[in-house]
Amino acid sequence: MTQPFVAPRRLLLGPGPSDVHPRVLGALSQPLVGHLDPAFLALMDEVKRRLRSVFRTANELTFAVSGTGSAGMETCLVNLLEEGDEAIVFVNGEFGRRMCDIVERCRARVVAIEIPWGRAVEREDVERALRKTSHPKLVAIVHAETSTGAQSPIADLAPAIARSGALFVLDAVTSLGGCPVEIDAWGVDACYSGTQKCLSCPPGLSPVTFGPRALEAIRRRKRKVQSWYLDVSMIEKYWGAERVYHHTAPISMNYALAEALRVVEEEGLEKRFERHRQNHLAFAAGAEALGFRFVVEPARRLWMLNSVYLPRLADGHDEAKLRRRLLDDYSIEIGGGLGAFKGKIWRVGLMGESSRREKVLRLLEALETILRDAGVEFRPGSAVAAAEAAA
Amino acid sequence: MTQPFVAPRRLLLGPGPSDVHPRVLGALSQPLVGHLDPAFLALMDEVKRRLRSVFRTANELTFAVSGTGSAGMETCLVNLLEEGDEAIVFVNGEFGRRMCDIVERCRARVVAIEIPWGRAVEREDVERALRKTSHPKLVAIVHAETSTGAQSPIADLAPAIARSGALFVLDAVTSLGGCPVEIDAWGVDACYSGTQKCLSCPPGLSPVTFGPRALEAIRRRKRKVQSWYLDVSMIEKYWGAERVYHHTAPISMNYALAEALRVVEEEGLEKRFERHRQNHLAFAAGAEALGFRFVVEPARRLWMLNSVYLPRLADGHDEAKLRRRLLDDYSIEIGGGLGAFKGKIWRVGLMGESSRREKVLRLLEALETILRDAGVEFRPGSAVAAAEAAA
Repeated sequence: MTQPFVAPRRLLLGPGPSDVHPRVLGALSQPLVGHLDPAFLALMDEVKRRLRSVFRTANELTFAVSGTGSAGMETCLVNLLEEGDEAIVFVNGEFGRRMCDIVERCRARVVAIEIPWGRAVEREDVERALRKTSHPKLVAIVHAETSTGAQSPIADLAPAIARSGALFVLDAVTSLGGCPVEIDAWGVDACYSGTQKCLSCPPGLSPVTFGPRALEAIRRRKRKVQSWYLDVSMIEKYWGAERVYHHTAPISMNYALAEALRVVEEEGLEKRFERHRQNHLAFAAGAEALGFRFVVEPARRLWMLNSVYLPRLADGHDEAKLRRRLLDDYSIEIGGGLGAFKGKIWRVGLMGESSRREKVLRLLEALETILRDAGVEFRPGSAVAAAEAAA
Repeated sequence: MTQPFVAPRRLLLGPGPSDVHPRVLGALSQPLVGHLDPAFLALMDEVKRRLRSVFRTANELTFAVSGTGSAGMETCLVNLLEEGDEAIVFVNGEFGRRMCDIVERCRARVVAIEIPWGRAVEREDVERALRKTSHPKLVAIVHAETSTGAQSPIADLAPAIARSGALFVLDAVTSLGGCPVEIDAWGVDACYSGTQKCLSCPPGLSPVTFGPRALEAIRRRKRKVQSWYLDVSMIEKYWGAERVYHHTAPISMNYALAEALRVVEEEGLEKRFERHRQNHLAFAAGAEALGFRFVVEPARRLWMLNSVYLPRLADGHDEAKLRRRLLDDYSIEIGGGLGAFKGKIWRVGLMGESSRREKVLRLLEALETILRDAGVEFRPGSAVAAAEAAA
């Protein structure tokens, strides 16, 4: 008989997935029921209700897409766009770029507003873009750019989008559950997220929410949505009162998401946000003591994703080898750079269950050793001391 | 604190999901690792290798789509079809119909060959359709129609498709792991399945395989695939040697699939098929003793999905109430009819871990009681006796 699979025990401090609460793993291993079982239908209702609460929305159509965060991105765009529509997409990192790619696959016209990687999308960027474009159907922004660590000030820029009359699509993959996401207060028409970031649930589902204006746009479509699997007008009949069979939902993953949302609710959103903020500040103080330099200006840094330039390493050392040593010797995962930042930065995720004081300190201690071995100079113990002083 | 979620213990004898092996539930609850962790990359290679073995193929591009079976269906069709292409789809149930819907969303021309529900697609159907259509790019057939219980004789009809030069797309959602599926021997160019049927893994992934001719068609595309999430030319770089980040794979679900495939391999495919056949025969004998009548002729019946017309019930009883009683009083799930068969038939799934002699007997015993209460006449104990005699 083959040996059962035993996963290594990692400390997950990369750009996601994050550490999962033991209660969520326990929910995953509950026995399976059918996708139309009354017990499962009740669980779906619970997921919808709890998702509304973390999204801070009253949107009826709030549910989990049966795919990962990118499937949620595609769901929002393919349902709202048709051939010939125009969409403004702000591109300040990898995920804005991905949205442009999907918009083009919808045969819609994309107006890509390029912003240097590492900078947030600001109100002025939005106002300028809207002045130049006649009547876009949709404006899309990434709230928390996981590829750069920048957070765009949505409360500040949302009114400009509202005045334009365009639909507002927000990527909240990395922000949801780690910092305020205010779907209704910000006037967001469609939003998608992932489960494996600040919700601390394994990857496999994408929470989404659609407001009344988005639904109206879907009802007025001339052609069917190009994806059958992601067609919201069909999926809503399964997640809604009709319970019409569409596809078989990933049952176990929904168990896990429900449990993860319970954990979030028990802690309380405000307390959870504050925990993310404190641990970010502690890590930032420690990292700067080691010679790391942040990519993003202080006011726009994400609490859950710290992007940093490395201090200068001695010859023969490189960032990829250091990350590999962190994984092999300390069982800690952190992320490297994507796209323009490949080989240049590290991305340290402090998301959900991974955003814990003791985990920040464990990382900083490990970094002290491997950086010293790579020829970086700093006062021993200074990183941990700075982190402890910061909070 | 909220109570942790406790799922009811069901015996899953519907059209899927099926019962899950405890080892698979154990794998699901293993701690999470990153989607680029060496341990996870090794697991992906294991999944690919084991999937090739159950698909009986040497196709390098064999992997699990990060969505359920319908996402696998969409993956095959959107990657192979472009605007203006012609596709022949055989429709002898719900899933053939679904393929037509997706083909149209690809802006391809669909030639739907309608065959009465409950009948298989036969060689003559294929030859006739190919004579009438000039040069279809693709021919799609459902191997095991879950909505009707009919199995089409693929070995018999495949040569006609091969002679036409069209790409052959096969739906093996319900058949894979329960009866022979011979991708290479049959000359299938693209095939998709689900995890929650005869592989007895929770729903959430869709095993797919693409052969050289399918890959060639993908390389020659004029436009990008309309789905970013399901674009095989990008996904193959993540599942292949390059390991280029595309989306975050559902890690825990892949743990589960790897374990489910190990369980399959330990039993051996031939033994597993024979078990499915024996338990189907036992159930069929028992069900006929109770007055059920099979929808499908004997030679074309699926071993894993038994579709039956109910015996005549006394006034005041209906099939939906009986199924609900089976669930409430016996915790057994079976399926009702879909589409044209809604309200008319039952679908009894004997898939993977659910295809066990003692589970067949448990169902028959429960049916004896609830049918007697619904005014059906038969000799007490006859169903169980017939089932026991049949094997």
